[in-house]
Amino acid sequence: MKCTILSIGDELLIGQTLNTNAHWMSQKMNEIGIDVIHHVSLSDEKSDIINCLNDALKTSQVVLITGGLGPTSDDITKDVLCEYFGGKLVFNEDAYRNIEKIFELRKRLINESTKRVAYLPDVCTVIPNTNGTAAGMIFSKEGKTIVSMPGVPYEMKGMVTEGVIPYLKEKYTLPYIFHCNILTAGVGETQLADRLIEFEKNKDPRIKLAYLPNIGKVRLRLTIKGDNKEELQSLVEAARKEVVSCIEEYIYGFDEDSLEENIGHLLRERNFSLGTAESCTGGYLAHLITSVAGSSDYFKGSIISYANEVKMDVLGVKLETLEKFGAVSGETVGEMIAGAFSQLKTDIIIAISGVAGPGGGTPEKPVGTVFIGIGTKDKTIIKKLAFTSHRDRNIQLSAVVALVMLRKFLLNQLND
Amino acid sequence: MKCTILSIGDELLIGQTLNTNAHWMSQKMNEIGIDVIHHVSLSDEKSDIINCLNDALKTSQVVLITGGLGPTSDDITKDVLCEYFGGKLVFNEDAYRNIEKIFELRKRLINESTKRVAYLPDVCTVIPNTNGTAAGMIFSKEGKTIVSMPGVPYEMKGMVTEGVIPYLKEKYTLPYIFHCNILTAGVGETQLADRLIEFEKNKDPRIKLAYLPNIGKVRLRLTIKGDNKEELQSLVEAARKEVVSCIEEYIYGFDEDSLEENIGHLLRERNFSLGTAESCTGGYLAHLITSVAGSSDYFKGSIISYANEVKMDVLGVKLETLEKFGAVSGETVGEMIAGAFSQLKTDIIIAISGVAGPGGGTPEKPVGTVFIGIGTKDKTIIKKLAFTSHRDRNIQLSAVVALVMLRKFLLNQLND
Repeated sequence: MKCTILSIGDELLIGQTLNTNAHWMSQKMNEIGIDVIHHVSLSDEKSDIINCLNDALKTSQVVLITGGLGPTSDDITKDVLCEYFGGKLVFNEDAYRNIEKIFELRKRLINESTKRVAYLPDVCTVIPNTNGTAAGMIFSKEGKTIVSMPGVPYEMKGMVTEGVIPYLKEKYTLPYIFHCNILTAGVGETQLADRLIEFEKNKDPRIKLAYLPNIGKVRLRLTIKGDNKEELQSLVEAARKEVVSCIEEYIYGFDEDSLEENIGHLLRERNFSLGTAESCTGGYLAHLITSVAGSSDYFKGSIISYANEVKMDVLGVKLETLEKFGAVSGETVGEMIAGAFSQLKTDIIIAISGVAGPGGGTPEKPVGTVFIGIGTKDKTIIKKLAFTSHRDRNIQLSAVVALVMLRKFLLNQLND
Repeated sequence: MKCTILSIGDELLIGQTLNTNAHWMSQKMNEIGIDVIHHVSLSDEKSDIINCLNDALKTSQVVLITGGLGPTSDDITKDVLCEYFGGKLVFNEDAYRNIEKIFELRKRLINESTKRVAYLPDVCTVIPNTNGTAAGMIFSKEGKTIVSMPGVPYEMKGMVTEGVIPYLKEKYTLPYIFHCNILTAGVGETQLADRLIEFEKNKDPRIKLAYLPNIGKVRLRLTIKGDNKEELQSLVEAARKEVVSCIEEYIYGFDEDSLEENIGHLLRERNFSLGTAESCTGGYLAHLITSVAGSSDYFKGSIISYANEVKMDVLGVKLETLEKFGAVSGETVGEMIAGAFSQLKTDIIIAISGVAGPGGGTPEKPVGTVFIGIGTKDKTIIKKLAFTSHRDRNIQLSAVVALVMLRKFLLNQLND
């Protein structure tokens, strides 16, 4: 079963609106074993809509269309589809009552252009719109299904969940599909690929492995599809186990886990409190940590010592240290950790000082040079790292690598 | 001039990765007068890539392709295009040196699969990748331009800006298109629309006005397209002046300006230093401020007092204040400001305390309740705000509104 998603609207093509509809519908189709093979964004033009629909029907049994169902003159999708499937528009009582209800609620009067919305093709199955005025439409042609929905995300979502998915499950016998995401950090795509050469050679050909890198992290996705549910589940589970065994030390979670949440769990388990002392990251590390709901259970606070005066006055970094080794040095980071302990009184402190850039680089400490330290009362680890020439990337990488270091640190704590 | 954008990658079609690349590239093509007519997302499959490319070349003079250039086995775009345009892969010295440079910086060793990345078609113009290993490629066919770039957003963006746009401007005579972005903050879309009713009525019909809202800010974009450069420029400039006169007090900048940079200018002008004391924003405000290169000129640091102990120990907030008024109160924010002054010794302090959610809400202080204070030695303003029920939105809105308040504060300082 293959599906094409057509997103109609000029606002998509000029880059004014981000196409989150196709993204969300793809997830939903995937969950019921339908392969989305194309997303196509196109303009509100009759000929373009017809051409794209013809192309889609050549390759797909299911075509999901959003957009162009509003009351304004540029909304032509309904008329084009009605003509395409050889029907005529007829007044729909239920659709009109729904519009009346909504307009009463919004204390607005129904004008002619709104009334137009209640006229629907006599050759489609109507999907009621519980969140707006424009109804959805399901057309059938040679066993294929063409669905037209509004572009407003929450209206479309309601229709897909309540109308489209039940319809498709009823009409077709769908295969099973299983995904497993293995989330890694602190390792490159190519290093992972090297570790998995044997696995790739020997794996069941039905299993697909994809590498999805993203700032200091790589997501490995295993996918399998077929008819024998139990077989597929055991195959993907076996593959997951094998991949895990090859790269265990880099894995921080699976599927929807986040590195920040994973660290939260580790801190809770150990009943450790956390604080940070940041210079070049300017609060971004604390922001990542506190982006997790409930992080106040373990995160106490941070001293952002962007200026050397603050490093000295608040964190007690010695002037001699700054003069002799510089603000970007292991020595300074060590004293930042000590100072943060006495101020924040946490079990663990992460401290970061580096040259984010674009300015401030020197031959021996170029832009991208960052020192990251993790300390407890009785143990401190400080690493020197070299990142990129881009300020924002350096800030992001510093924070993510600090979290990766903290994770390793916490796991070793357990082993001690 | 018409353009089709092809986004290659299964992660897009299963709804794992949101296609922000097509969205961004559409904006850039639009800015140079090229009409994007289709976005197509497709899988890493040879036949599909070839079919979609053939279709695109039927309707477009420019085809922008992203994805499938990585070192792993599922990255086939380069090989497919090389074959499609009848070339062969040859070792590229510059591309290899770039990879070496990056791997040295990252202290990684170059393996075979990485070396593959340095082999490029002998029938393309190479676009250097200043942000990663995989080079971009420009192919020409019957006067049409086909560009292949990595799917990693910041690598693609660098190539489009430094390589693709200059190439297209050089090769084609593009219509003149002028955009003017007027950046506002602290005002809603509808309020702006009310102020601009007269302007919309009387403006030259060739001028388009778009409202682009985004977390506490609204960008107004004026666009005009045509062949008479001087006429278009004077028309859009006149329109800009008129819009500015209608909504002057909400404008913080134009085009690529940022609110953070604007505040940086205001602080520099007045020779004021800035510090923050954050609770619910957890460092996000400091992060926004320090995202500006050179912000160390005016930003000294921050105390992130996520826990009440830190509010008391580091900022000297009184226990009675926390018990009587709560951590989320004007009284607590006032004491946070005082404490931050004695710790950070800056001219201005911004303090924030609120209920980001999802937990922690009460009937009188529901999720989204945030107190923001701005203080100098002799003047303090504290505001109570009510935002949304979403944690991340509340954090973002708190920080942006704080910056908007600071901006007004600084402008009034001048008038004092």
